Amino acid sequence: MAMEGYRGFLGLLVSALLVGFLSVIFTLIWVLHYREGLGWDAREPEFNWHPVLVVTGFVFIQGIAIIVYRLPWTWKCSKLLMKGIHAGLNAVAAVLAIISLVAVFDFHNGKNIPNMYSLHSWVGLIAVILYMLQLLLGVSVFLLPLAPLSLRALLMPIHVYSGLLIFGTVIATALMGVTEKLIFSVKNPAYNTLPPEGVFTNTLGLLILVFGALIFWIVTRPQWKRPKEPNSILLQPNGGAPEGVDGPTAVHFGNMDKSDSELNSEAAARKRNIALDETGQRSTMTK
Amino acid sequence: MAMEGYRGFLGLLVSALLVGFLSVIFTLIWVLHYREGLGWDAREPEFNWHPVLVVTGFVFIQGIAIIVYRLPWTWKCSKLLMKGIHAGLNAVAAVLAIISLVAVFDFHNGKNIPNMYSLHSWVGLIAVILYMLQLLLGVSVFLLPLAPLSLRALLMPIHVYSGLLIFGTVIATALMGVTEKLIFSVKNPAYNTLPPEGVFTNTLGLLILVFGALIFWIVTRPQWKRPKEPNSILLQPNGGAPEGVDGPTAVHFGNMDKSDSELNSEAAARKRNIALDETGQRSTMTK
Repeated sequence: MAMEGYRGFLGLLVSALLVGFLSVIFTLIWVLHYREGLGWDAREPEFNWHPVLVVTGFVFIQGIAIIVYRLPWTWKCSKLLMKGIHAGLNAVAAVLAIISLVAVFDFHNGKNIPNMYSLHSWVGLIAVILYMLQLLLGVSVFLLPLAPLSLRALLMPIHVYSGLLIFGTVIATALMGVTEKLIFSVKNPAYNTLPPEGVFTNTLGLLILVFGALIFWIVTRPQWKRPKEPNSILLQPNGGAPEGVDGPTAVHFGNMDKSDSELNSEAAARKRNIALDETGQRSTMTK
Repeated sequence: MAMEGYRGFLGLLVSALLVGFLSVIFTLIWVLHYREGLGWDAREPEFNWHPVLVVTGFVFIQGIAIIVYRLPWTWKCSKLLMKGIHAGLNAVAAVLAIISLVAVFDFHNGKNIPNMYSLHSWVGLIAVILYMLQLLLGVSVFLLPLAPLSLRALLMPIHVYSGLLIFGTVIATALMGVTEKLIFSVKNPAYNTLPPEGVFTNTLGLLILVFGALIFWIVTRPQWKRPKEPNSILLQPNGGAPEGVDGPTAVHFGNMDKSDSELNSEAAARKRNIALDETGQRSTMTK
């Protein structure tokens, strides 16, 4: 990565971290200052874990998990380690999402509020189920050394697409959740008089949206992609993929992820140049 | 495009058209059967134009505008014509979006309901403003023959990214709007008892989401990209590619997924090679 591109990446990464962190803080302030605080009592304080855990896990941690391969200082780490971190962060997000569901179901049952009637609940439950399937599929196909490379290559574009689709759907669901909760709970003064809680929580919604927009920008820039493993230069002089090594796996990621430029025959030559270039730059950077 | 890829594309296109069309039909049934119908009287029938015009224009027509370059039978048309169609569809969507805003403001004012207090209204207005800017920028940079190629190359990835971000934001806003309207209006029996209107309109929300997911899949597949100018006009056989020509064409789709890949520093040289290469391959193809 050229130094200029590196600075651009850092600026966007810091912005994403800041906006994501602010989203979590805003959610905490919302439930602690404007709402009833946190607790586990089948009443409002238990419900309040729902937005806190969703924004922390399902939005912020999932967002970071999506871009973790793109951190330049991890490019010297093995691909397997990075896959482990990617899967681990997503697993943490999944656990928090599940607990957030338990909180809201428990709250509903304690207050005799029906479950699963709203569009928010339908889309949210679908997103959680798809997220679990995505995690299971991701671990069994890409992390465990079981699947043949051809299967990995076949499924990688689907994995990338589903991951981004689920992330976008989670953000849409969070915005629906904010909408619902404000209409239900901001009563005195009412939400439609735009009281401070309304302004504050609408702003939280905007922060979540901006966080999603930053993650989408970072993850779709081809120039910020993790380069191929250096050893794969040696392992595949013709751009082909010998079986059973980690390098070619990275090749398949390169091919499938991010959609485009690397799927063709002459791309191999170009990638070799980029990879060499990057190796040089990285060793310079770490001096 | 190989015949198999072509069939896959057609299947997804038909699905997207069907789901998008169903979304419009569901919206019409919603307002005509479950709500107060359509009118322009500063009361509920005027409000009802808001969802109808948003789903028709801002969701369905915008979605089609996004994938219009990918229709294989348009590849023999000039790029300028396709840009005109892309801009025209987006302009129609913009007009419908504006009218949909007029309807809701007029309704609010007629009923003394405050404007612009909800997260839905904030995000929706931002989306409409960004959409107008995107349209203006798109026409002045990419459609009119004024901007230098370097500026077009610089702005193209931003144009693609913003377009998809706005489209995704519109879908999230539509889901918030459905949520709001159902909570406000479905009273007897209440939304939380999941009456037929609730099930029906939640399903409309799912249809809108699935429509968005299909458009995102179609527009991010590198192999379904419009091939490069200028020889395609002369050399593309009518109605798509004959069997057996997938090799070279598919290779070039990969290269030309220009949303991002063409803008790297080495892209210029690469493109020259590709263009030459393509000319050779295409002329071979048509023998």
